Amino acid sequence: MRMYDLIKKKRDGGELSAEEINFFIRGVTDGSIPDYQITALLMAIYYKGMNVRETCDLTYAVRDSGEKLDFSSVKGIRADKHSTGGVGDKTSLVVAPIVASYGVKVAKMSGRGLGHTGGTVDKLEAITGFRTTLSEEEFLAQVEKIGLAIVGQSKEFAPADKKLYALRDVTATVDSMPLIASSIMGKKLAADDDVIVLDVKTGSGSFMKSVEKSRELARLMVDIGKNAGKKMVALITNMDRPLGYAVGNSLEVIEAVDTLRGHGPEDLTQVCLALASRMLSLAGKGSAEECFALARRAIEEGTAFEKFKECVKAQGGDVSLLEHTGTFAKAKYSREVKSPAEGYIQSADTEAYGIASLLLGAGRNTAEDEIDYSAGILLRKKTGDFVKKGETLATLLTNSEKALAASEETLLKATVLGKEKPAEEPLIYGSVE
Amino acid sequence: MRMYDLIKKKRDGGELSAEEINFFIRGVTDGSIPDYQITALLMAIYYKGMNVRETCDLTYAVRDSGEKLDFSSVKGIRADKHSTGGVGDKTSLVVAPIVASYGVKVAKMSGRGLGHTGGTVDKLEAITGFRTTLSEEEFLAQVEKIGLAIVGQSKEFAPADKKLYALRDVTATVDSMPLIASSIMGKKLAADDDVIVLDVKTGSGSFMKSVEKSRELARLMVDIGKNAGKKMVALITNMDRPLGYAVGNSLEVIEAVDTLRGHGPEDLTQVCLALASRMLSLAGKGSAEECFALARRAIEEGTAFEKFKECVKAQGGDVSLLEHTGTFAKAKYSREVKSPAEGYIQSADTEAYGIASLLLGAGRNTAEDEIDYSAGILLRKKTGDFVKKGETLATLLTNSEKALAASEETLLKATVLGKEKPAEEPLIYGSVE
Repeated sequence: MRMYDLIKKKRDGGELSAEEINFFIRGVTDGSIPDYQITALLMAIYYKGMNVRETCDLTYAVRDSGEKLDFSSVKGIRADKHSTGGVGDKTSLVVAPIVASYGVKVAKMSGRGLGHTGGTVDKLEAITGFRTTLSEEEFLAQVEKIGLAIVGQSKEFAPADKKLYALRDVTATVDSMPLIASSIMGKKLAADDDVIVLDVKTGSGSFMKSVEKSRELARLMVDIGKNAGKKMVALITNMDRPLGYAVGNSLEVIEAVDTLRGHGPEDLTQVCLALASRMLSLAGKGSAEECFALARRAIEEGTAFEKFKECVKAQGGDVSLLEHTGTFAKAKYSREVKSPAEGYIQSADTEAYGIASLLLGAGRNTAEDEIDYSAGILLRKKTGDFVKKGETLATLLTNSEKALAASEETLLKATVLGKEKPAEEPLIYGSVE
Repeated sequence: MRMYDLIKKKRDGGELSAEEINFFIRGVTDGSIPDYQITALLMAIYYKGMNVRETCDLTYAVRDSGEKLDFSSVKGIRADKHSTGGVGDKTSLVVAPIVASYGVKVAKMSGRGLGHTGGTVDKLEAITGFRTTLSEEEFLAQVEKIGLAIVGQSKEFAPADKKLYALRDVTATVDSMPLIASSIMGKKLAADDDVIVLDVKTGSGSFMKSVEKSRELARLMVDIGKNAGKKMVALITNMDRPLGYAVGNSLEVIEAVDTLRGHGPEDLTQVCLALASRMLSLAGKGSAEECFALARRAIEEGTAFEKFKECVKAQGGDVSLLEHTGTFAKAKYSREVKSPAEGYIQSADTEAYGIASLLLGAGRNTAEDEIDYSAGILLRKKTGDFVKKGETLATLLTNSEKALAASEETLLKATVLGKEKPAEEPLIYGSVE
């Protein structure tokens, strides 16, 4: 088999066989196919697409390209959720403990933030002492014992995706439905959970800007997962504004704790309950409605918060910070961003809000950047709210005083005011099952 | 400027500016743009094409990517021809001396053969002692003194094309009109001749299989050349059968000498006269008709053959071989390929004929292969001829006895017999001016 022939076939709109796709991913993984042939094929896939069969085969080849954990020592059903990434998305910190509090195992391997989106691992590292790197034995033992563990992705996890993504990122081939779906699902399926609930974000803060595209991606990923024998649901959720009011690592942990304690922001709470209820339901705990009530009860009765603290404690984190969130380290500098005029917030470019937070030190431009855990944004007003001239839109927090001006400018530029109250957008656009 | 943005722009069907194209070719040449980004852009160009303006800018950037010869010491008009490559195409050996015999300077830099097509430099090296590598001073001095010199292309000539071609060759992006045109013309314009006559081959032995595509390529290349201030004509010529009857290096030199002496095959003679007359006419020697008569006279009066011998002698070649072509070294083994049936030759896959010759040792599979100068094929029958069963179709010549069987099989498989005499195809389909 020659890579040249695969490129030519796809170039002309042909369908790659499972054998050809496996040959490709093996060659990507072991380095036997040169990068210049990989990117030529990626561009041909960008134009010619892949059908569901090809996308499934690509996904499974990516899944199988690296090491896997052996979960045979963990009893019971394992469930996970996966978000396509947004701004202020701290749902994992809330959803995982809710689900685990009902005995469904959550063995979560999360990513770090890059660009305008944050990562669960970074957020957890804002908790002093929290170890996101556990040995395989520690990880499995913790999942078995307390039903919940959250770690960073190990290096050898679906390495083909890492290589492919790095090449797509520099050759304008990220924006391809089969490549996006196989990248997300290849990594996700490598964890071999029984239940997977996808949170497909849509809107200005996500990389899928339209609801239709989000639904298409959701459909494809659900089919890929089902075809691999998984129980799957995807929710399409709104990312035209940040979720909750906190953007930045310790700020988001605090908001997640508030939510677990029953006094979180309404939008965040609703999305968390929806995701958790789908996971519980697919794990056999009842209908979606019954499980919604279960999820709500785990918050009301405090069992979810207890489960979260149990997990944090097991991974070395300082639980007293969660009990007294006022004791988190505070950023040295802050600035109130004032509204330049009166009116309703018509729209706010959520990606720009993510960038404004990154500029304050809360995110990474490149994988090597260090994070300022206390930096970030506390929103005071969101899309649809009325503001007076001079009223505070948001509070910026940082340890780098000189970052304030650029962040403020970015945030103000991203916020559009107008006379009329804008139509309310749904928080959850629907589900794909 | 970022290569990413160029890829994205072309991916979406945008038009690259001259500045962007120059940035691209500079980066290809100095290695600052990684191969994986180059091939992604090449694939995007494959799909989205380039307009004439972009193709011109790409060509000129390729032309300017390397060293150039300084022809200021050479007086008079310099003319050259360029063929897109075929089987049995020894026209340069005939056309260049004809043109030079009228005082038009021919400073020819030719290529080597690869795959099924031969190269002028290999053919000349079949003449004992002939040096195809001259110093710049020697080359210029010879052009000035006798008006004709033929050498191999130096390494630093349009290096961007070398790099791009190598990448296109392994990523299925060779077959793109703007990339083909800019590759051919980029190299050709680097030689800075005043007059360029293109011989665009069409049919089974060329890489343009249809007359329409050949005409499109010819149009594009003529426009590129004119836009650079050159006098340009392209002829579209038939490569559905080999030109002449000899395929292989010394065999082709002998046939070229026969043609220069006025008893060459009719098809080869006609194409040579057509090309030479166009070059002479563009160089100001009269109308195309007048120059056709001039070209014919140079053969009849022997001045073209004298000019060829003068050139060969100047470059160290053994002129006695040309005067007594029977003294060329002969291949040790030969085989008569007999017709398996009676009938008219309906068609002969000319590319396969080239491969059959390559198998005998006359060509190269890879750039490192050595050539057997005496190997090749002498055709006895061509498309349109009637053959009896058992009559000789061709004679195979080689120094590798074991090569005979595969070559014979290839040749027989490529030859289609039938009852009816096929319609005669034109030798020259037309011109683009």
